[in-house]
Amino acid sequence: MKLRGFRHRCSRLLALVTGIALAAHAFAQIDPLASWNDGAAKQGIVAFVKAVTSKGSKSFVPPAERIATFDNDGTLWAEQPMYFQLIFALERVKALAPGHPEWKDKEPFASLLKGDVKGALAGGERAMLEIVMATHAGMTTGQFEKIVRDWIATAKHPKTGRRYNQMIYQPMVELLRYLRANGFKTYIVSGGGIEFMRPWVGRAYGIPPEQVIGSTIKTKFEMRDGKPVITRLPEVDFIDDKEGKPVAINKFIGRRPILAFGNSDGDLQMLQWTAAGSGARFMGIVHHTDAEREWAYDSKSPVGRLDKALDEALARGWTVVDMKRDWKQIYPK
Amino acid sequence: MKLRGFRHRCSRLLALVTGIALAAHAFAQIDPLASWNDGAAKQGIVAFVKAVTSKGSKSFVPPAERIATFDNDGTLWAEQPMYFQLIFALERVKALAPGHPEWKDKEPFASLLKGDVKGALAGGERAMLEIVMATHAGMTTGQFEKIVRDWIATAKHPKTGRRYNQMIYQPMVELLRYLRANGFKTYIVSGGGIEFMRPWVGRAYGIPPEQVIGSTIKTKFEMRDGKPVITRLPEVDFIDDKEGKPVAINKFIGRRPILAFGNSDGDLQMLQWTAAGSGARFMGIVHHTDAEREWAYDSKSPVGRLDKALDEALARGWTVVDMKRDWKQIYPK
Repeated sequence: MKLRGFRHRCSRLLALVTGIALAAHAFAQIDPLASWNDGAAKQGIVAFVKAVTSKGSKSFVPPAERIATFDNDGTLWAEQPMYFQLIFALERVKALAPGHPEWKDKEPFASLLKGDVKGALAGGERAMLEIVMATHAGMTTGQFEKIVRDWIATAKHPKTGRRYNQMIYQPMVELLRYLRANGFKTYIVSGGGIEFMRPWVGRAYGIPPEQVIGSTIKTKFEMRDGKPVITRLPEVDFIDDKEGKPVAINKFIGRRPILAFGNSDGDLQMLQWTAAGSGARFMGIVHHTDAEREWAYDSKSPVGRLDKALDEALARGWTVVDMKRDWKQIYPK
Repeated sequence: MKLRGFRHRCSRLLALVTGIALAAHAFAQIDPLASWNDGAAKQGIVAFVKAVTSKGSKSFVPPAERIATFDNDGTLWAEQPMYFQLIFALERVKALAPGHPEWKDKEPFASLLKGDVKGALAGGERAMLEIVMATHAGMTTGQFEKIVRDWIATAKHPKTGRRYNQMIYQPMVELLRYLRANGFKTYIVSGGGIEFMRPWVGRAYGIPPEQVIGSTIKTKFEMRDGKPVITRLPEVDFIDDKEGKPVAINKFIGRRPILAFGNSDGDLQMLQWTAAGSGARFMGIVHHTDAEREWAYDSKSPVGRLDKALDEALARGWTVVDMKRDWKQIYPK
């Protein structure tokens, strides 16, 4: 009884002190979305987060159900003049060429090695697949991870001269952090390769490997010199794009997101799936409108085409982020 | 400056008060593994957890990397006289029979509907697959979830008379909770269906849907009356067993577990994959030795065969839990 009384007094004192400390902290608080201009997009995000996190609010969502899913290419980092993973693959072909003398006479490699990217990609999906498999398969998962880590640490974008992980969007990094500070679990749901993203997204976005969903090639468990390895096979397992996104969300997470962000028609089904749940929902689209600081493109772009999803966003009142108008800053300083 | 000084004093006071409160709490602490008898298995678990969570210990593992994976059938809940998901499927055939008059003359359904389970399963893998697809596919994910929820809430085991979610192992539930209290993220990695487990494992084990990995059938996103649904197709997507387990762990989690628990040869590769990482590791096997309180079986059992994995466990010094000797209690009270 004595101990209980003591603990009770302790916890009242604790509550009091914590209250004072929190109030003092509020004085010093800075805007968690500092790179966003004050406009409808920012206000919409803040209002949504307040609604789902305020106890007693009729839109309240328990923390465990605060699932937020984000496309990566064009939503969290840039994707022009082509997907960065494709640039990685093209550069890998060059790096691997000395071990593949037969590539000199074999398309799409021959064109590529002569510097003719357009010619190499003229073979369409089949050419692309050959390039991807030649550069993404045939090694263990550990070896591939190291290849990606080395590339992301050194390769530079031809136009900006920045490293690719410095072409992430600062306002989106702030949004991810803001959501997590409000009890959300933030996921990437990308058409990009799951093992191409995992080595660097932790540092770039604060997203751990188990919250990265993406396209996959098949892998195989086997013993090598008595040690188990997982090897990457030249065979597509799953393409995490369009209808694939809600399918993968259902498989990996097993809960429906309450917030989803994309930038292209490849994200439409994820946004529709998110919107169709009950209760408060937030659907966002990054619209690339800033030819000066980034790129301006939508319905006519071969990369990140935004056409149907933009129509649906406007018709249904989803939030369309106008990059030029809504973002104070594009990349991290 | 003034505010800063005040906050500093506050946080010192806060630390002091918290320290006292925690010390008081320790008085009242009970054994987190109360259903385990004191023996090598329990001591091994506690020693491992202390080693990886003690700051400054050379075996320290940061919380984000404390991944623990558990098989389900025979490791977290019982699996005799046959996998409970198979019992579910057989009972669903009976429930669905009125809508399928053709089943009366079609194997394996005909035998099954006459009560001849052995005859129905005589058709081997093909018969099993037909039963699974007839009962697990052809509906939306939401509909299937409801079917599983209803079944788990009402169906009873033929021998124990218990509901299936009351045939979970109390010592393992305590272990899961103990690990989470020590910063571990606990996962299920089961040969069972991912969507068969998700509806009830949260309540049974405290494991959220996004930490459930299992076998899957293909699914499809489609619009129905303008509303998106995900439907379940009668086609195997992935079998999460044997070599499939490390492959799925790599795909879903992207980190190697530091602790893994199984009970059969289907878990061997998961245990090998876990063991092959660097630093402190814990590999555990539940050995079914208790014919009185549960079942006793290993190398000769058609369900949950434990043969090669037991040899390897003994040879490599993995922890073998002897159910009869190590567990005070089997099921929850």
